[in-house]
Formats: sequence, C-alpha cells, structure tokens
Amino acid sequence: MMTFRDEDFLPVEVPIGVSNRHIHLCRQDLDTLFGPGYELTVYRQLSQPGEYAARETVTIVGPRGVLEGVRVLGPVRSYSQVEIAMTDGFRLGLRPPVRESGDLEGTPGIAVVGPSGALTLPRGVILAARHIHMEAERAASLNLHDDQRVQVLVPGMRGMIFNNVIVRVSPNFRLELHLDTDEANAALLANGDKVKILRP
Amino acid sequence: MMTFRDEDFLPVEVPIGVSNRHIHLCRQDLDTLFGPGYELTVYRQLSQPGEYAARETVTIVGPRGVLEGVRVLGPVRSYSQVEIAMTDGFRLGLRPPVRESGDLEGTPGIAVVGPSGALTLPRGVILAARHIHMEAERAASLNLHDDQRVQVLVPGMRGMIFNNVIVRVSPNFRLELHLDTDEANAALLANGDKVKILRP
Repeated sequence: MMTFRDEDFLPVEVPIGVSNRHIHLCRQDLDTLFGPGYELTVYRQLSQPGEYAARETVTIVGPRGVLEGVRVLGPVRSYSQVEIAMTDGFRLGLRPPVRESGDLEGTPGIAVVGPSGALTLPRGVILAARHIHMEAERAASLNLHDDQRVQVLVPGMRGMIFNNVIVRVSPNFRLELHLDTDEANAALLANGDKVKILRP
Repeated sequence: MMTFRDEDFLPVEVPIGVSNRHIHLCRQDLDTLFGPGYELTVYRQLSQPGEYAARETVTIVGPRGVLEGVRVLGPVRSYSQVEIAMTDGFRLGLRPPVRESGDLEGTPGIAVVGPSGALTLPRGVILAARHIHMEAERAASLNLHDDQRVQVLVPGMRGMIFNNVIVRVSPNFRLELHLDTDEANAALLANGDKVKILRP
C-alpha cells in the first residue's frame, strides 16, 4: 500500500477547473452557424486570461444521439474543436481519442447546428488530455517544465492518483488543473477543490 | 514519479465490469411499479452467479431532471436501491454519497415510475463504492480478506491508480472489479479490460 508524507508532494495546491463539453470555433464556422461577421458575447470570464464562455450555444449531432446547449468558448480560434467527455461520446455514438488542444489529425468529425446554419466538421472531436495550466515563474520555482507529465493525488473516499497529467507553462496562465466531467465526477471533484502534485 | 515493477503487483488480472445506472427493487415496490405478484424476466445474466439484468425498466424522477429506461436488476432484494453515477446525479439534481450496497441510512430518495404505478423511495440513491468481487479461494491464495481496501493500477494515456477499492469475498463471487460509468469513462475502461492490484 502506498502511503505518502508531506515531502512526497511539491509545495503547491492546485485548484480544479472542470471542463464541461464545449466547442471552439474558427471565424468561418462562426459565420456559418451564427451569421456573417457575428461576434460572440461574453457569458462568463474563464480562469485563463482572455478566455471566456460565450452566451452562444450550439447543438451537436452524432451518429447515435444529440447534445443540445453545447457552449461556445471564445475568442475564436484558427480551428474548430469540440471537447466532450466519454460519457457524451456514448450518447453521440463517437469514440474520440485523448488529445491535446489543436492536435486533431485523425479525430472524428460531427455535425454542428446553430441559429443561422449548420455544418459538418470533418474532424475535431476530442477528449481533452488532462493538464495543469501553470505560470512560468511558478513552474521555474517548482522545477517543472512545459509538457512535463506529473502525477496528481486526489484525497477522499473516491481518492485516486491521476497519471499522465500534462504541465502547460506560459507567463499568461493561471494555476489550474483542467479535468473533464467524467474525470471530475469519478473523483468527486468540483471547481476550486485543491489537489497535490507528486514530486517527480 | 512512481514507477512499478511486476513484483509490485499481486499475481492476478482483474476484469472490469462497468455498472450502468440501475435499480434493485424489494417485493413490495416491484408490486407497486409492475403490478401485484409481478415476476421479473431475465434480459441478460450478470457475471455474479444468480444476478441478472431484467427486461423491465423504470423512469426515475429527481428534483431537476428525469432518467428513462433505468434497468431493474434481479432477483428482488429486501430493500430498494438506486445506483447512479455522479454525472446522472447532476442531471437528476441529486448528490448521493458513496456507499456500499445496502448502507442506505441518510441517502437521498427519488420518485420511481413503472408501467403500473409510481412511488417515492424515501431513501436509497447511492454512488456505489468501487469493489472487487473475489472468490474465497482466490482471496486466500492472494492473502486478501473481505472488506480489505486495495489500490488498482489502470494503464494507458488515461492511466490512474484507484485508491480505496473494497475487496468483497464470497465462495459464490466471480472475480471482477465493478466501476460506475464515470469511473470507467474517466479511465477509458470497458467491460472485460484487465487491471492489476498493487501488493498491499
């Protein structure tokens, strides 16, 4: 049985951010779904600077099922991407791979419907690889580098250790571990809960 | 970073059984929902001897949402119990605790609707505590005992270590680790996949 002492962990507590299913849109797809030149409106700022949940939502239609009210995240990106949990995948009839954002080669596509039009993404549905956003200065002080894999301990009755948690470092990031709803619900974690990183 | 060698594990590979949301019914509740004296019919035998998924399904109605087609498991029990995943809990508007089967004190209730009637369970909705069913002979050979907590390693990109996995031992059991759909989907595990137990 593994047991841990304080010195087995890095001296940092990482807050959880739970990512519900959502979609990022490129300019062209936003035009198709919401009308030419449409501008997203801010519903809620997200923890990472500049990122926001938009008021706008779309319907995504897979081979076996439909999910309504899928939130658009802004600002627009250079590519469209749909991030779901595997539970959503079963409802849609899709089995997307675990990928980092933007790594879309070979991922399944899906139909997307907005108030002004519909389109079929030829690819872009992923299960997001869990990752920690970390400020560059903090990463340096913890001796962690961008793209490093770490392990994270979740305490409690549904306690677990997540392996293969990717560290993403940027001066603009704010410390947060992003999990999808399956991961968060499996571990009974909610936004703002704190977890610890095992010393690499 | 933890790394493991073969000798860190018990010499057994445990197949996964994923438990989708389901309901167990007592005789009286079966009568109310399906009619007096109703007998469940077998849809599919489950891995644990004598247990089966019935053809019969019910609708469960929580304060914020509804789940249709919730399968009844047979045979009837001395108590009614609803086992869901936390993802289902959010849809229903319930936050059930993690419990072992039958430990229902203080758990939320829910409305249940069948073809012949409806009832409100005053309690009985749980997130099932993950557990390994194990034959008594095998447990003895592995030096494990009933109610022991072990840790289980899941390999792969979504790899993790589940803590607090309860070992349940009986001569009638067949080796299997039962996870709910959130746990299985978080770890990308499906029925029949194999995992390893860390040596206690």
